[in-house]
Amino acid sequence: MSGRRQPVLGVLGGGQLARMLALAAAPLGVKTLAVDSVADACAGQVAPLLVADWTDYAALEAFAARVDVVTFDFENVPAETAQRLAERVAVFPNPRALAVAQDRLAEKTLFRECGLPTPDFMTVDTREQLDQALATVGAPAILKTRRLGYDGKGQFRLHDLADADPAWAALGAQAAKHGLILEAFVPFERELSVLAVRGRDGDFRTWPLTRNWHVDGVLSMSLAPAPDIELLQPRATELARTLAERLDYVGVFALELFVRNGELLGNEMAPRVHNSGHWTIEGAHTSQFENHVRAVLGLPLGDTGARSPSAMFNWIGELPDATAVLQGVDAHWHDYGKQARPGRKVGHATVCAPDAGLLATRLGGMAVALGREAQVAPVLSVLA
Amino acid sequence: MSGRRQPVLGVLGGGQLARMLALAAAPLGVKTLAVDSVADACAGQVAPLLVADWTDYAALEAFAARVDVVTFDFENVPAETAQRLAERVAVFPNPRALAVAQDRLAEKTLFRECGLPTPDFMTVDTREQLDQALATVGAPAILKTRRLGYDGKGQFRLHDLADADPAWAALGAQAAKHGLILEAFVPFERELSVLAVRGRDGDFRTWPLTRNWHVDGVLSMSLAPAPDIELLQPRATELARTLAERLDYVGVFALELFVRNGELLGNEMAPRVHNSGHWTIEGAHTSQFENHVRAVLGLPLGDTGARSPSAMFNWIGELPDATAVLQGVDAHWHDYGKQARPGRKVGHATVCAPDAGLLATRLGGMAVALGREAQVAPVLSVLA
Ligand SMILES: Nc1ncnc2c1ncn2[C@@H]1O[C@H](COP(=O)(O)OP(=O)(O)O)[C@@H](O)[C@H]1O
Ligand SMILES: Nc1ncnc2c1ncn2[C@@H]1O[C@H](COP(=O)(O)OP(=O)(O)O)[C@@H](O)[C@H]1O
Ligand SMILES: [Mg+2]
Ligand SMILES: [Mg+2]
Repeated sequence: MSGRRQPVLGVLGGGQLARMLALAAAPLGVKTLAVDSVADACAGQVAPLLVADWTDYAALEAFAARVDVVTFDFENVPAETAQRLAERVAVFPNPRALAVAQDRLAEKTLFRECGLPTPDFMTVDTREQLDQALATVGAPAILKTRRLGYDGKGQFRLHDLADADPAWAALGAQAAKHGLILEAFVPFERELSVLAVRGRDGDFRTWPLTRNWHVDGVLSMSLAPAPDIELLQPRATELARTLAERLDYVGVFALELFVRNGELLGNEMAPRVHNSGHWTIEGAHTSQFENHVRAVLGLPLGDTGARSPSAMFNWIGELPDATAVLQGVDAHWHDYGKQARPGRKVGHATVCAPDAGLLATRLGGMAVALGREAQVAPVLSVLA
Repeated sequence: MSGRRQPVLGVLGGGQLARMLALAAAPLGVKTLAVDSVADACAGQVAPLLVADWTDYAALEAFAARVDVVTFDFENVPAETAQRLAERVAVFPNPRALAVAQDRLAEKTLFRECGLPTPDFMTVDTREQLDQALATVGAPAILKTRRLGYDGKGQFRLHDLADADPAWAALGAQAAKHGLILEAFVPFERELSVLAVRGRDGDFRTWPLTRNWHVDGVLSMSLAPAPDIELLQPRATELARTLAERLDYVGVFALELFVRNGELLGNEMAPRVHNSGHWTIEGAHTSQFENHVRAVLGLPLGDTGARSPSAMFNWIGELPDATAVLQGVDAHWHDYGKQARPGRKVGHATVCAPDAGLLATRLGGMAVALGREAQVAPVLSVLA
């Protein structure tokens, strides 16, 4: 029989997203090669891992030669790295889409161009501009680095004008290098995200809207399909489609949204598979990881319908005891194989049920067994 | 933070079963190390692979030192190898259970002791004994090697007494080394398998009975839950439990059954995860692979309930074009990353649906798109 060559997916970054991409790629017959600057990056447990820095161009060239397509576990890969790789091998999402999503200013500007309002914002490069921005945008507000922020890092919340000094003390040093942006604090009713995927051929799909709860700027719980989204889903889908087409985006992305007075506001977009889409592994017919692999390799996209209502617990810092989840019905444990460290995403668990009432029952029981009542409370209040 | 050590699952054999075990182990935070005699064994794409023969005791000792528990992708590991490993590290299933399942005579003897009838059989060591066995058991019959047979290999079907010569020509040479057994050919109404799992603590569970169709002795299609099993399920579960307890079995196993005149007959048992349980990846709350990992590591077993009716296509020899499956709703592609070769298991696909009628519709459509109408026909006839 003639030999076959399996396609190889190259992933920049070797964290849990790369790990779950590799696990989804394998059944498609796709091999994964991840690259990360640390040798114990957790994707290396399930796929070969190349250890190199983002500016080690010789290593990245060797990487490019070994893969069929390059994608991202980590969106803050330097633009130049992405650009150089794109000269050698297909890179999805394309470097321009990546660049937009890396910069909160470019991102919000694009949102507005696409008809998606955003919180009021102003860029801030100096201490004086911070005062001007505060006067314009008003308090409360959030000062954020334009680039490199994630999981609530690189943010400072200002309750009133007097907070300008501590805000500047915290982030002013980053103004010159990464830029800053002051955003109005939105007293939102809900946070939602729309996970979307676009294929090389332009085929476009969204999963049902996900409702998210953050604690200290880090995702804590997700619920999908989000309840009461009949009116919002079509609009979220159309906005995501417009964005994807404008960027000629290929792959999965997440669009994070606030709901205020029943209207959608754009917060940010993540140009990759996203924490708020982890429920799709068990809760949807095709997971975000599988569809991302399919999209970047030019395979047909899979059905993004939900199989059942699902809730996801994020494990931050360290894993709780797994027993309650392992013993649960349709409950799924995800240990990323990382060392515990404060604030680090080390795993998640997803619980599914045939209907919302049963999901509430299962979640409630698990919350008690895990000692996580406070984490689960907001989800239960919505399911009640 | 203090470091953590992730458990390591050692797997003897690096084929598709080891590959799917490794994919199921990762979300549990369990690392896998497979050992195989060939360097391109497909589990090596998703886990580290040690290349060694079953009698390379030095290499196997090094393997044992690196893992927390040893299990099997391949049940025909020499008994001595399993025994030597068991002196160094926990081996599940235990070598005695493995030895019973390796020998069709020991297996059938145990079945009968446990109250499970089997087809009539006699052992055959010489040409004369073949004639005597044929006279006793009657024709049609099947001559099988006692050991090392799989996927219908090491079998010869005898339609009448005159087939004794060609049967002996085909298998006589193996009589001295592996032993032979002559079995009455059973004109069964159905073939079923019960997938079962037993934990280190004795917790025991079965998945719903699976109906199987073989072509040339190789599994072609499975359907689960098998229709019309209300009367058979409790008996199959109890028989599997009795067997497991007699063998002090730990892990997943499959018990292959014939149904004749509405009664169960025992064919053989596979002391490992089994091809007829692949549907559990998407069709059950916990897959056979995940529960096997949990069982051998002493973790709580997961729920074995079916999520929805599921059918599995086996891909033998080479993969068909994947498009129809990738485009299907709740249809799942599994490419094992192997080279095509006649008779080789190179992948499978599972299709799920909320009810049997919709499953029939989806399967029927897919059969046409795949050009596999003949393969699917027996399943459709049962779903109609
Ligand atoms: N303008 C805002 N108004 C209200 N809450 C906000 C605002 N910006 C951020 N947040 C809260 O902080 C979380 C993290 O902020 P985000 O801008 O999404 O940064 P990150 O890149 O860290 O995810 C958001 O999900 C939301 O809960
Ligand atoms: N005694 C029998 N009567 C009828 N069919 C049989 C008999 N033995 C085997 N077969 C058919 O051949 C298939 C493979 O045989 P089996 O004994 O299970 O060997 P293997 O170890 O290759 O799976 C069975 O699943 C069944 O379809
Ligand atoms: Mg965010
Ligand atoms: Mg068999």
